[in-house]
Amino acid sequence: MKVIEGGVTAAQGFEAAGVEASIKYQNRKDMALVYSRKPCVAAGVFTSNIVKAAPVIWDKEVVAHSPYAQAVIANAGIANACTGSQGYECCKQTAKAAAEYLQIPEDAVLVASTGVIGRQIPTDKIMEGVKKLVEQKADTIEAGRIAAEAIMTTDTISKQAAVTFEIGGKSVTLGGMCKGSGMIHPDMCTMLGFLTTDIAISKELLQEALRENVTDTFNMISVDGDTSTNDTLVILANGMAGNPEITSKNEDYEKFMEALNQVNTTLAKMMAGDGEGATALFETKVIHAKTKEDARKLSKSVISSSLSKAAVFGHDANCGRFLCALGYAGVDFDPDRLDVFLESEGRSILVYRDGNVTDYSEEEATQILSAPEVRVLVDVKEGDGEATAWGCDLTYDYVKINADYRS
Amino acid sequence: MKVIEGGVTAAQGFEAAGVEASIKYQNRKDMALVYSRKPCVAAGVFTSNIVKAAPVIWDKEVVAHSPYAQAVIANAGIANACTGSQGYECCKQTAKAAAEYLQIPEDAVLVASTGVIGRQIPTDKIMEGVKKLVEQKADTIEAGRIAAEAIMTTDTISKQAAVTFEIGGKSVTLGGMCKGSGMIHPDMCTMLGFLTTDIAISKELLQEALRENVTDTFNMISVDGDTSTNDTLVILANGMAGNPEITSKNEDYEKFMEALNQVNTTLAKMMAGDGEGATALFETKVIHAKTKEDARKLSKSVISSSLSKAAVFGHDANCGRFLCALGYAGVDFDPDRLDVFLESEGRSILVYRDGNVTDYSEEEATQILSAPEVRVLVDVKEGDGEATAWGCDLTYDYVKINADYRS
Repeated sequence: MKVIEGGVTAAQGFEAAGVEASIKYQNRKDMALVYSRKPCVAAGVFTSNIVKAAPVIWDKEVVAHSPYAQAVIANAGIANACTGSQGYECCKQTAKAAAEYLQIPEDAVLVASTGVIGRQIPTDKIMEGVKKLVEQKADTIEAGRIAAEAIMTTDTISKQAAVTFEIGGKSVTLGGMCKGSGMIHPDMCTMLGFLTTDIAISKELLQEALRENVTDTFNMISVDGDTSTNDTLVILANGMAGNPEITSKNEDYEKFMEALNQVNTTLAKMMAGDGEGATALFETKVIHAKTKEDARKLSKSVISSSLSKAAVFGHDANCGRFLCALGYAGVDFDPDRLDVFLESEGRSILVYRDGNVTDYSEEEATQILSAPEVRVLVDVKEGDGEATAWGCDLTYDYVKINADYRS
Repeated sequence: MKVIEGGVTAAQGFEAAGVEASIKYQNRKDMALVYSRKPCVAAGVFTSNIVKAAPVIWDKEVVAHSPYAQAVIANAGIANACTGSQGYECCKQTAKAAAEYLQIPEDAVLVASTGVIGRQIPTDKIMEGVKKLVEQKADTIEAGRIAAEAIMTTDTISKQAAVTFEIGGKSVTLGGMCKGSGMIHPDMCTMLGFLTTDIAISKELLQEALRENVTDTFNMISVDGDTSTNDTLVILANGMAGNPEITSKNEDYEKFMEALNQVNTTLAKMMAGDGEGATALFETKVIHAKTKEDARKLSKSVISSSLSKAAVFGHDANCGRFLCALGYAGVDFDPDRLDVFLESEGRSILVYRDGNVTDYSEEEATQILSAPEVRVLVDVKEGDGEATAWGCDLTYDYVKINADYRS
């Protein structure tokens, strides 16, 4: 497997575009298209929030019932959530327009929105945007980059990743883009994420692969504990790589899972590190927990804790807060056996051992916590469960961004 | 029932004190004593955090196994959590010293600590503090006030409440104090809270009453989602009111429950409103949910949501965030039937009705959210479950306080 440049246009047969539609933002691109020249099997995972945005409801139907999908239309600025039947009608109109311009069936079009909740999307602007997107679509790396920029909201960087690998002598490519910075605490999935691949794989296995992988990637990040109404991750596979179609969990499937994990981990970490107001990526790795599920809960509890996040922002080795967050994770373990390390940039110090804080150097701990990527490593010493979660620090800017996001 | 002045010394036979012991803070009182001239039946609820502070372990034993309790020694500044066997030894020494000075059994002494986790308490300073506390104890309102001040950490106001009521012609009093401002997301209970009453009641019913009541009071508040290692709420009942002892759930028990609810609601709201950095008390009331438990989960999810809290700080009627938080509460409901109101100071506006944001005035909404106590009222229209939860806004000062709490 090789990491390559690009995102949604890296795989064969995929095109993309990003345009200015002035949905809410002015003077920036705010609509994106992802399109495959050939029909794709599609899979998706969506928010577990009871309050689901209209595009989530639309996409779940497409993924479940359409024989194939071929395009995604996404917009930033307005989330089209809490918008009732008018909001759903907007999805339908969007899909209809895209279908006409692209000459594909309406039920092969996925839609996605992100932004303010509770406001209607101006459908006329969406219609103009769809037209421009289709006119400008291209299969270049540059087109993928523009699309990734067009779906940003409070993100400060656009997020793409891609890899190639070989199956049966054929070169297969998987790429993707995502956006997300606030209201990030995915459950089943994440904010908006779009993956494209030219692999040939059955729809059932594609769905299974995606669902299994998000458990260790997008579901292991949190910025603020708020599970969005719009979380959507979809993958389109058009089969153009020409590999023998994957229809069972064979070696080829494992190779695909590795590639999927690489791309999704990269994208998920980019989201966590670009959390609203963040100055650092805050990773927690738990090893030797009783089970993998325990390790997941423990690591996610630490990176989700407001007090732990504030301590990272202050470069303060307040390890009591990490221990406190482990303690309320809902997992049974022996706090008197734990070891806790603080790590960054190849350095590591032991701050807690067997129920007691160690005699570590505060100066060294502060240095370690001042890096742009910091890690808390927890050794539970009880089994072989292992997991990693990613978040960010809690800063003044998080409050600033969210105290008046709508204006 | 009548609300009266005072706290832990309001009921007959109770004394209190607060002294400077320089545990961590300098030039302020940081140790408190609550003492009953007569032995008390005691009940307590404690943190559900797996990582339990040494005093929590000590108190759980006292409440479970001692025939009675008669004193509480509390300190602020160091939490005595994650301190291993040395931390537990400190509790023992503290109880032993208090027992000697007060001439009561060692296992009648409860201890409690709050402050930094992972640091050892200087036992010599505790010993001097205990001596001074016993010398200075008094049954005055003033002594109760000083004790309430001595247990504060990042609290900006001390927190007391008391009521009197009649049972069988006898005047009964219940009072209490508590502290708590950060690391507040009680589960089973809250930060430190001490209740005293002269009622005659069996130990079993006292425990049952306390456990039942915290579900609707202290367990319904959150400042930052972090369940502390030290959460402790204990009640001491010395029987000096002379009422017929309550041994069954009769009318007298109901009267006591009413009084307990009044005092605990008052104290819990004071803690939420004094959350670290808070500029407003943020209440959410949910009515007509399917069950009471559903209403509890829904209301607590809203006041715990970082994005909802930041919106309150920004006086921004971003009702989509409230809906989003309702949606991920883990409760099944129909988002298309909900009504949501914003309320404060006697004013109320409907911002969301039947799946759609209403055409409310942003100006009026901002005015309502600018009050020192704001409320989100949610009508689920599905049953008769009702609950209220209390939190506070998320501000720059919360981050400031917690980015470098230890220095």
